[in-house]
Amino acid sequence: MRFDIVTLFPDCFNSVLNSGLLGKALAKQIAEVHLVNPRDFTTDKHRKVDDEPYGGGVGMLMKPEPIFNAVESLPTLPRREIILMSPQGQTINQPLLKELVTNYDQLVVICGHYEGVDERVLHLVTREVSLGDFILTGGEIPAMALINGVVRLIPGTVAKTESLTAESFEEGLLDYPQYTRPANFRGLKVPDVLLSGNHAAIARWRYEQQIQRTRDRRPDLLEKLEQGAGGE
Amino acid sequence: MRFDIVTLFPDCFNSVLNSGLLGKALAKQIAEVHLVNPRDFTTDKHRKVDDEPYGGGVGMLMKPEPIFNAVESLPTLPRREIILMSPQGQTINQPLLKELVTNYDQLVVICGHYEGVDERVLHLVTREVSLGDFILTGGEIPAMALINGVVRLIPGTVAKTESLTAESFEEGLLDYPQYTRPANFRGLKVPDVLLSGNHAAIARWRYEQQIQRTRDRRPDLLEKLEQGAGGE
Repeated sequence: MRFDIVTLFPDCFNSVLNSGLLGKALAKQIAEVHLVNPRDFTTDKHRKVDDEPYGGGVGMLMKPEPIFNAVESLPTLPRREIILMSPQGQTINQPLLKELVTNYDQLVVICGHYEGVDERVLHLVTREVSLGDFILTGGEIPAMALINGVVRLIPGTVAKTESLTAESFEEGLLDYPQYTRPANFRGLKVPDVLLSGNHAAIARWRYEQQIQRTRDRRPDLLEKLEQGAGGE
Repeated sequence: MRFDIVTLFPDCFNSVLNSGLLGKALAKQIAEVHLVNPRDFTTDKHRKVDDEPYGGGVGMLMKPEPIFNAVESLPTLPRREIILMSPQGQTINQPLLKELVTNYDQLVVICGHYEGVDERVLHLVTREVSLGDFILTGGEIPAMALINGVVRLIPGTVAKTESLTAESFEEGLLDYPQYTRPANFRGLKVPDVLLSGNHAAIARWRYEQQIQRTRDRRPDLLEKLEQGAGGE
């Protein structure tokens, strides 16, 4: 998978690209990440990437030309998606990450900044993606989240394929509680069933915990599950 | 605002803390960020921070002691919240960010890693927060999102206070389309109304665009608005 990140702040990706799982995936060439700065594609002497909004309003918008020029400078793989990170986009969730890792060889990720991006940039993009219903100062952290979430689904990135399936959201439920040593930590004990060696009982307990926890915290997920099972 | 980030990968925060708005806020001492590594609080000679889950399962869990010890090493400001970044938590949204910036002087942010964190860590935390319904390799990027979203709400961080209010989600609607120069870019023109100088007409057009765009893309937000207006 090739990622091209279009950002005014390429430096802010350095640490994330060099550490943890993403660093390993890049070293193993399972994924490659290229950074491109719209400022390098300005044509005026001030290298201006932002300007005031038409119709008034506070803050500055990212101009269309430098973004178009930056994206047009990139190589094009056959299955390419051009994504604008924007609070107006579809919210990232696990099915979206799976769709991206399955259907594309190249993800161009445009990070908005300032008060936003000139609307005409949408003529260039094939999808708008949002990290959630909240505002950050730019699209850089949302882009990191998208890339991390996609890269960990690429075969070869996470060592045991099992650990991709036995986890939250894969089955529409929250995860069950997990415990490791010591069995007694400051008087807080691991539930007996997990020490019993009775695998059927453990599996039942875990499933019950998933249902209960999802009902308590995220009834919306349970509703979705029930609708999915009943309908379509 | 003081942030203490409890993470096995402190290096991965370097670039984000040194660039953009967060870098400026830290330089102006509007916020301070401290990094603490649970590995520095292990007591065994292998400095072991993870172990196998009781009851079986793939992957490794973060052990409770190093996290307890790391958090207990921190100074305690009067209004302190201890947050675990976890897919099981409440989803970050703009009201949550406002609540955090308003009610607390210190946010301790614990980043989970590996397959998860020993459940007993919940005895230490006062709140679990999730970035959304998807899985990343660790809590570091979610922590960056939380910190960025909170810091930009601290007075003095964003230059014009207006730009905090006139934006998505502040009023429960998506943002309106915005345009900047040139008025004609490759044949794509800025809507006439924005060039009209008629401020009433511009305000009306923008509001209509917000409603229409929210209806098209995020009918769930409109429903919430209508429920809020009718009920409670």
